[in-house]
Amino acid sequence: MDRASDETDRFLPRFDAAGLVTAIVTDADSGGLLMVAHMNADAIRLTQQTGAAHFWSRSRRSLWRKGETSGNGLTLVEMRVDCDQDALLLRVRPAGPACHTGRRSCFYRRVETDGSLTFPDDDA
Amino acid sequence: MDRASDETDRFLPRFDAAGLVTAIVTDADSGGLLMVAHMNADAIRLTQQTGAAHFWSRSRRSLWRKGETSGNGLTLVEMRVDCDQDALLLRVRPAGPACHTGRRSCFYRRVETDGSLTFPDDDA
Repeated sequence: MDRASDETDRFLPRFDAAGLVTAIVTDADSGGLLMVAHMNADAIRLTQQTGAAHFWSRSRRSLWRKGETSGNGLTLVEMRVDCDQDALLLRVRPAGPACHTGRRSCFYRRVETDGSLTFPDDDA
Repeated sequence: MDRASDETDRFLPRFDAAGLVTAIVTDADSGGLLMVAHMNADAIRLTQQTGAAHFWSRSRRSLWRKGETSGNGLTLVEMRVDCDQDALLLRVRPAGPACHTGRRSCFYRRVETDGSLTFPDDDA
């Protein structure tokens, strides 16, 4: 682990070979995990400039603002970075369900030891 | 988005080209984000079988049990999977600081809009 990375007060994101970092999105009020996405340098800049969470879609290979079609945008409250600066935490206020399935969180299924998934009432 | 993936009750993790999924680790009691790591099929299986969180280290190219050197293991309370099954949530009880820096969480720095990082008292 690079000490220069984990104690510096300079934001120097460590992008992967595709130019991306992992972005973890939590509800700023409840703390609950909402979704995981990816950000490139443009997504980070736009999120900081506008206060609306932007991501990079690996499947569509394009920048997108969360909520641009669904209306369920995410307003940034705080951005954090992890020790080795390859993952970001976005603490947000969601305008609606964060998951494309209409659920509050993308993490609505529990992995059981027999390889099945169950759907707890609490969706995160 | 593949509907078969987001509504199925079968655990079919979508590994990337390197055979990995993203693993987000939160404190099962506080809900706070502790760390982000990667898991391959072996790490998932060992975590399920032993109840101790295992990950794949991309830098060392090896499987590791969190806490095997530090003593700060993570006991699994619940595993969840996201809608497209390429990210896992591990809700855990940590035996000590999750971050190699000795902090409770790896997300101890706030990203400011001027490109600086600050160190809030609350480390997650």
